[in-house]
Amino acid sequence: MAATVAAYDTAHPGDTDGLRATLAPFSPRRIRRLALLVKTEGNSDVNDYSREYGLLSARLALESHGGAALIERSTFLFSTGCEGAMTPFGYLFLDYDDDAPPRHERALVMGCARSRSLLASEVGRLPHAHIAAETVTAAMRDAGVTRDEVALAIVKTPVRSFVTEGQSAHRVTSAHAKAVGALGAGIALGEVDPSRVVEAAFDRDHSLYARRAMVFSGAELDGVEVLVLANKRGAAGELTVHSGYMADLLDAGGIRHTLEAAGCALEGGVVADPTRVAAMLLKVGVAPDGRLRGNRTTIKSSHIDMDKHVRAAVSGIVGSILGTTRSFISANTVHQAPPGGGLCACIVTQG
Amino acid sequence: MAATVAAYDTAHPGDTDGLRATLAPFSPRRIRRLALLVKTEGNSDVNDYSREYGLLSARLALESHGGAALIERSTFLFSTGCEGAMTPFGYLFLDYDDDAPPRHERALVMGCARSRSLLASEVGRLPHAHIAAETVTAAMRDAGVTRDEVALAIVKTPVRSFVTEGQSAHRVTSAHAKAVGALGAGIALGEVDPSRVVEAAFDRDHSLYARRAMVFSGAELDGVEVLVLANKRGAAGELTVHSGYMADLLDAGGIRHTLEAAGCALEGGVVADPTRVAAMLLKVGVAPDGRLRGNRTTIKSSHIDMDKHVRAAVSGIVGSILGTTRSFISANTVHQAPPGGGLCACIVTQG
Amino acid sequence: MAATVAAYDTAHPGDTDGLRATLAPFSPRRIRRLALLVKTEGNSDVNDYSREYGLLSARLALESHGGAALIERSTFLFSTGCEGAMTPFGYLFLDYDDDAPPRHERALVMGCARSRSLLASEVGRLPHAHIAAETVTAAMRDAGVTRDEVALAIVKTPVRSFVTEGQSAHRVTSAHAKAVGALGAGIALGEVDPSRVVEAAFDRDHSLYARRAMVFSGAELDGVEVLVLANKRGAAGELTVHSGYMADLLDAGGIRHTLEAAGCALEGGVVADPTRVAAMLLKVGVAPDGRLRGNRTTIKSSHIDMDKHVRAAVSGIVGSILGTTRSFISANTVHQAPPGGGLCACIVTQG
Amino acid sequence: MAATVAAYDTAHPGDTDGLRATLAPFSPRRIRRLALLVKTEGNSDVNDYSREYGLLSARLALESHGGAALIERSTFLFSTGCEGAMTPFGYLFLDYDDDAPPRHERALVMGCARSRSLLASEVGRLPHAHIAAETVTAAMRDAGVTRDEVALAIVKTPVRSFVTEGQSAHRVTSAHAKAVGALGAGIALGEVDPSRVVEAAFDRDHSLYARRAMVFSGAELDGVEVLVLANKRGAAGELTVHSGYMADLLDAGGIRHTLEAAGCALEGGVVADPTRVAAMLLKVGVAPDGRLRGNRTTIKSSHIDMDKHVRAAVSGIVGSILGTTRSFISANTVHQAPPGGGLCACIVTQG
Repeated sequence: MAATVAAYDTAHPGDTDGLRATLAPFSPRRIRRLALLVKTEGNSDVNDYSREYGLLSARLALESHGGAALIERSTFLFSTGCEGAMTPFGYLFLDYDDDAPPRHERALVMGCARSRSLLASEVGRLPHAHIAAETVTAAMRDAGVTRDEVALAIVKTPVRSFVTEGQSAHRVTSAHAKAVGALGAGIALGEVDPSRVVEAAFDRDHSLYARRAMVFSGAELDGVEVLVLANKRGAAGELTVHSGYMADLLDAGGIRHTLEAAGCALEGGVVADPTRVAAMLLKVGVAPDGRLRGNRTTIKSSHIDMDKHVRAAVSGIVGSILGTTRSFISANTVHQAPPGGGLCACIVTQG
Repeated sequence: MAATVAAYDTAHPGDTDGLRATLAPFSPRRIRRLALLVKTEGNSDVNDYSREYGLLSARLALESHGGAALIERSTFLFSTGCEGAMTPFGYLFLDYDDDAPPRHERALVMGCARSRSLLASEVGRLPHAHIAAETVTAAMRDAGVTRDEVALAIVKTPVRSFVTEGQSAHRVTSAHAKAVGALGAGIALGEVDPSRVVEAAFDRDHSLYARRAMVFSGAELDGVEVLVLANKRGAAGELTVHSGYMADLLDAGGIRHTLEAAGCALEGGVVADPTRVAAMLLKVGVAPDGRLRGNRTTIKSSHIDMDKHVRAAVSGIVGSILGTTRSFISANTVHQAPPGGGLCACIVTQG
Repeated sequence: MAATVAAYDTAHPGDTDGLRATLAPFSPRRIRRLALLVKTEGNSDVNDYSREYGLLSARLALESHGGAALIERSTFLFSTGCEGAMTPFGYLFLDYDDDAPPRHERALVMGCARSRSLLASEVGRLPHAHIAAETVTAAMRDAGVTRDEVALAIVKTPVRSFVTEGQSAHRVTSAHAKAVGALGAGIALGEVDPSRVVEAAFDRDHSLYARRAMVFSGAELDGVEVLVLANKRGAAGELTVHSGYMADLLDAGGIRHTLEAAGCALEGGVVADPTRVAAMLLKVGVAPDGRLRGNRTTIKSSHIDMDKHVRAAVSGIVGSILGTTRSFISANTVHQAPPGGGLCACIVTQG
Repeated sequence: MAATVAAYDTAHPGDTDGLRATLAPFSPRRIRRLALLVKTEGNSDVNDYSREYGLLSARLALESHGGAALIERSTFLFSTGCEGAMTPFGYLFLDYDDDAPPRHERALVMGCARSRSLLASEVGRLPHAHIAAETVTAAMRDAGVTRDEVALAIVKTPVRSFVTEGQSAHRVTSAHAKAVGALGAGIALGEVDPSRVVEAAFDRDHSLYARRAMVFSGAELDGVEVLVLANKRGAAGELTVHSGYMADLLDAGGIRHTLEAAGCALEGGVVADPTRVAAMLLKVGVAPDGRLRGNRTTIKSSHIDMDKHVRAAVSGIVGSILGTTRSFISANTVHQAPPGGGLCACIVTQG
């Protein structure tokens, strides 16, 4: 068993040539777990269906490789938005049985889990947070790791535009759904005090936050899906995963410290050997007042969605450090970082 | 005589409180030249009038400070687009007679010039380039500098959506107008061979480019306007200006080298004493195929104008180096850099 | 005294040539009241300042015609959005002393009023509604009419993005501000039961609505401004005003009935003598579920703001009836019509 | 053999529930021809993939109904844009063998054809026009009708962003591709003089236009695809098709005349029995200067694509005549109508 990750580009959201080619060498029978973490181009408007198109296309590709059984063992984490210096691409994560013996003290492992479908009345409510927590825990179990060994939990959580219950209806925004999922992940990771996770705190009490969770939401799923990345003693494979923090959007130092902690040297602010970085993931937020380093920005007051401002700006920073446009960059860190802060994680080949 | 520069923020494009406060201490009679280099928030769509609003508001502010005579000595360089980690703000450049003696070997000087109104038949054509060249030369003369002393020429050039001449009409795009202005500036700066500046080369022969010109276009003016920044022996004032290159959008090294050449030390990729940087200007382009470091981007194939992708990404890079959101960032470097390249300039307090 | 209305086009939001030319024949001294009802082109995004630009430009134009005193007697009602078959233009309303005797039994009169500045704590709250009611009443008094004589009250009401009171803050959206203003107008017009106007009803109890009010909101004003149009016995002038209803966005019949009630014959669904229609105003809404005639639309679920869908669609309907692109079309009828309904008003030359 | 048409709604571009339900009663073996004419919601930006998503989903639906053989007999005509009072929906056209005898003198028939793949060097060039002409002729043959019997030819034609030939490249815009397809259709329909169809006339000589062709373009196809609708003596079925003209966007009279010519009575400008209208198709253009009835519009000078302005405005007009939001509305009539003009077609149940 060894977890690997490989990047593949997409010419458009429906393009699966890269995915098929990357997957081709791997026998479906020996794939224990598969996860796709994909950045889809598209404008993210309410009537942008590029992610759904990408998902459908990827499912058809996996199905042709390994049938419904492979789909069943797969986790799909699609996120729209490739602004700035970003390439539309995906990371293919595989937990593959290649009979290789462990060569390092610790190595990357992955675990996946999917919850039952949430009831409409649960979405955005306390049970949603608890189910998120349980699903992260299940993914840790799947990976065979403790919560202290986890470097990153990637959580996808359902969102519902309109939820009708009897006479009343509640609307669960994407931000709210992420908030609930993040608090759940924080409980599972031991970073958030469960007793403080009450509905009044959702997207409100920003003193609560996980530190190793990236949370996404999507209307295309009914349950919570989780991919956990960890370093495990005795695991085979060449990779390790490391996560760290960004104090704010401009905190290039946070990215550099994370890379250095992972064993990647930097020269003049730039990573010395970019080939060692197999994957880079970032999630960065904006302060509630939209200010940065004390100054006004238009991130929260323009015709462009704030997440796009963030992704594009971060793409420049991380791209200038790694010398590549292939990083997975996301915005909105509600309950995943202090307000205005961020987190990043890299998967690197061990030296 | 001493050239100074001060940044002032705007709460919205019509806000001139910062401008008025910054200008207040300076007696209009002693202002030899005034230039406003302003980044206006707005969406830059064809029906975005934020720049015109900003211009009108700034004119009213200058008029109330120094009447029509001050307007006559002023140059207005407004540019829309504050995406990403950028603050909507302006630089107020003043050439002010403060009786102070020179304290450094060289110091910043500024020169301004404005051409006659171009005929409709000239816009986008060869005479336009020659008039741009003459206006840059006039601005150098106004500053009392040779072309070798110039660090940066900022050129604003007219654009015409539809030009009708007799029976025929030609359309001059913004990119084309910038191309013509840049080639003219390149001639004046001795960077472009005048014999190669023919209409067939406009926005086509990309082996021709100036290296110390930033060119903007606007439908609001009929002639070419130029602000030249240079370091001059014997000038008073504390500032110097330095310009350098960026190989591509992700070339943080180019920014760092320019700062170091200006005497600003860097630590861990970040400028050590940001208070010494009085102004930072950048202009960066995109390769014709939209690729960056060999990978596809969506910069040229998304619903967001490519200039916005560029500005937002660069705002992250330069912001993470300077620790501020106040930099003047612009895109489109046609004939101002090799395709996909860029240029930057900083004005710093001498050590 | 005679109220008149004239349409003038704008080449862009800052263009006042048409306004100046239309205003030129009128001596400022004899202008009792002036109102501008203007449709500004612009994209209506949060960072679109075309309306502010238009307002500033119009103020400068009025000031040059009649000084600060004329400004003081003027009401500015600017609204952004000229999608579809609509021309960016303004209606100049004048109450002018031209010594002409009454020639008809009744004729158009106008009345204007402006409230005191609202406190931040009042905006969006009950006092806001009461102040709106008082201002509409004051405008009726200014016009010298009873509420039964009023055909249309045009109300502009302040909006505040963020209102801070002590520790707490409340945000007043544009829709909420319109809701409050509309309920106030409904009280003044006798169309809404004052006892039902409570904060819990704002933008919620949609069984409450005025029938002769068009309400706009803007962050550029602190108080409520009102223009009342009515037909008054004994008034001079050639015009009368008539208002009616639209059952929904597609209800061309509602427009036709209003024109017919005003005395304009229709042939084959089209107005027979368009020159008799001096002004046409419409305001139309969308049902909460975004459906129309039982079918789904994308009006509330697309990248285009719903008001733009509405304005463009209505511009086709009314334009095909009147044979012109010069109608003042607005969306959002919260508390101004039943959900999904609308209202229209025409000013016509008496036969 | 009898051609039928049925409308089905889509909840989103990937939704095929309505299509599947509409198709269910029809045995695949007895379907001679199938055509989908679909209005997909989406923002039509360069990175909007809703149409591709809709196409893939529809293909999967047809495949599950009738396998690859049914796909082979099917024509897919997808068009993005449901602005204003329009419902995202599709028309399912079937030529179905139901053994019913003819009951009317004439009835609707349909014919389909698909050309070979065009060479890159042919796209946008003269051969493209000739191939379009041949494909329309082949579709008429497939329907068994003469060109005089044709009411409408719906043509989909390929577009290529970048075409490289040896050293040179040419770009074929969507408008250009439609122009070429329309001239080809005009030749086949006998409406355009073949000798005048030269490359210099493409999208330039606007005195050339077909009168019964609606032309679309798409990057998703390599060849020309055509659906021809005609009334044929001796055909079975209850429907007939009729086409007519609109002088401009506001010409509701043109729509009414077409309906009346098809036998549908109007009352007060509104169709008396809407249930008789099985399908309504419209395609309307804008004058080159963007003016309408002599007045400026922002159709060609706003942040919203001009086609969206047109579709939304026309949706209001036709919706107010038919009392429904289910009409197929498209813009850009290059060589399909005089500049600024349009065409419409209705399929109605015979009285």
